[in-house]
Amino acid sequence: MLEDKNPQRTSLEELGEFGLIDHLTQNFELHHPSSKMGIGDDAAVLDFKDKKTVVSTDMLVEGVHFDLSYTPLKHLGYKSVMVNLSDIYAMNAEATQVTVSIAVSNRFPLEALEEFYAGVALACKLYNVDLVGGDTTSSNKGMLISVTALGMAQEKDIVYRKGAKPNDLLVVTGDLGGAYLGLQVLEREKEVFKVNPESQPDLEPYSYIVERQLKPEARKDIVELLKKLEVKPTSMIDISDGLSSEILHLCKRSDVGCNLFEDKIPLDPTVISTSEEFQMDSTMIALSGGEDYELLFTIAQADFPKIKANPNLTVIGHITDKSEGAHLITRAETKIPLKAQGWNSF
Amino acid sequence: MLEDKNPQRTSLEELGEFGLIDHLTQNFELHHPSSKMGIGDDAAVLDFKDKKTVVSTDMLVEGVHFDLSYTPLKHLGYKSVMVNLSDIYAMNAEATQVTVSIAVSNRFPLEALEEFYAGVALACKLYNVDLVGGDTTSSNKGMLISVTALGMAQEKDIVYRKGAKPNDLLVVTGDLGGAYLGLQVLEREKEVFKVNPESQPDLEPYSYIVERQLKPEARKDIVELLKKLEVKPTSMIDISDGLSSEILHLCKRSDVGCNLFEDKIPLDPTVISTSEEFQMDSTMIALSGGEDYELLFTIAQADFPKIKANPNLTVIGHITDKSEGAHLITRAETKIPLKAQGWNSF
Repeated sequence: MLEDKNPQRTSLEELGEFGLIDHLTQNFELHHPSSKMGIGDDAAVLDFKDKKTVVSTDMLVEGVHFDLSYTPLKHLGYKSVMVNLSDIYAMNAEATQVTVSIAVSNRFPLEALEEFYAGVALACKLYNVDLVGGDTTSSNKGMLISVTALGMAQEKDIVYRKGAKPNDLLVVTGDLGGAYLGLQVLEREKEVFKVNPESQPDLEPYSYIVERQLKPEARKDIVELLKKLEVKPTSMIDISDGLSSEILHLCKRSDVGCNLFEDKIPLDPTVISTSEEFQMDSTMIALSGGEDYELLFTIAQADFPKIKANPNLTVIGHITDKSEGAHLITRAETKIPLKAQGWNSF
Repeated sequence: MLEDKNPQRTSLEELGEFGLIDHLTQNFELHHPSSKMGIGDDAAVLDFKDKKTVVSTDMLVEGVHFDLSYTPLKHLGYKSVMVNLSDIYAMNAEATQVTVSIAVSNRFPLEALEEFYAGVALACKLYNVDLVGGDTTSSNKGMLISVTALGMAQEKDIVYRKGAKPNDLLVVTGDLGGAYLGLQVLEREKEVFKVNPESQPDLEPYSYIVERQLKPEARKDIVELLKKLEVKPTSMIDISDGLSSEILHLCKRSDVGCNLFEDKIPLDPTVISTSEEFQMDSTMIALSGGEDYELLFTIAQADFPKIKANPNLTVIGHITDKSEGAHLITRAETKIPLKAQGWNSF
């Protein structure tokens, strides 16, 4: 949709590869004190002093991870950065730089890439990270994005997936299931649009969950909050593939089991009402729907007083001995083994 | 060709995304002292102590950067790592880690990805770098690879593109043009094969240049050699797009001009004979053919005695004042302005 609305179309061939990179990155400046050299040399140079370097990478593929018929390119640029920053925050680290590579077919005009980079720039600005590298190349078909995020942390502050202990509390940030349901709404409107191109979808009632899908926010604030509260989680992971899958990752790496309480899972009212509308079970959506980019972590029970009044944090269960397995305790108080039903691109 | 020869075909769906990553990376161990946490958490954790972090990233797209009809996947895995390490060495830094992400369509069996990762593993082993992350996802069409390389260096050792001064000597490693001509030979054999599938190409006379194309080596040895010789280049870049384009990058960043002498450009005998066979000018090939992954650098004249006897290093020109421009001095002693005619994917 976005592309067709754009009256200006400059072909990528006109600029060539170097001209394109220069053009797209000319307004990116280095702000973070750790960025010594950004774009313009063979490699970026970063100075993390006595801190450790933290690095994570992710790919987003058109038709697999996103659908350009309802994804504004600016949002896509923003989201591409977010999904990577989320991994850095899940280490309890500060995100500092990103590299963004993009492969696009010639059908994309320059103006489309400008939109994409405007989203990258906004994400960089709001999260105080610098774009320090990347590659721009052509693809045979569609768009593919690869982002690497870098961050830094004192060794003592880093939180791994490993480290959860029996009796630790299982805590989640924000609320779950919104991004997945937002995607269902967008897919439904796309089908309606196919049948009736004149239809004007009213997405207003779904604005929260549509935004969760199209423009997620990584939880930089939580890393800062935990520092302020003087809480160091015993283990942490970000929720990209659904709560169930992520809990199982923590349990596997930490060699523990857990009890997750269905009635504790935080759900936004829009998630509940839209689940009903789609005749889907909201718990299943929270457990298996992905892309919420919230953080899931465990803390020692002794730290509970520090977090208990915080509206951003919800205790949803506790860690058990490995022999007890990983279970969901339903509202009806039945115990169901947790299964990973997260998203699989293949 | 490779895929068809393979009797075993395991579909990617069978494994799913997590199973696939686990399977492909299970034999990768961490060897470099700076690798604290590799694959298996939200992000890798690296400890470069008092050194700076150096990072570079590149994408390789099927049908644009490589042709699987004549590129063995193991070589492709190897080359994907090399093109990125080359950027780290061009900073005069030590390469220490890579992340490797790959998007493939379902037409690739697991065994094809195993071949690719075998090449990645070989590159990691020979260059003493660790695979510490990556992503594996499906694509709608073909294969796309994104690699990020990380390295480290003392601040005082880092060499940028900027820094060349008038009268500095322009030095190149190895020899040039081989990778481009190797590609021409492979493309020719592909056409022959299309016409006559029974033909058995004799690539023996071209083995040097075909290997330059399919399995390039990044110049880790040069960084070590320069350290041993106690030479710090004043500027440096790796040659991925052809000598001409890279010289112009150095001149632009350093705000200088240069004279490049045609008769000094190092050419392998196979490059000379194959250029004649293809009725191409070998100088043009060295200037504009890409993918040699040699290093181009400048040194102060005072350092000349330290490098002069070294068979790996050839002085090909010198830096001039910016006002004199960048020129090629031909064998006939005519002066031609250097133009960037490097490769452009669009």
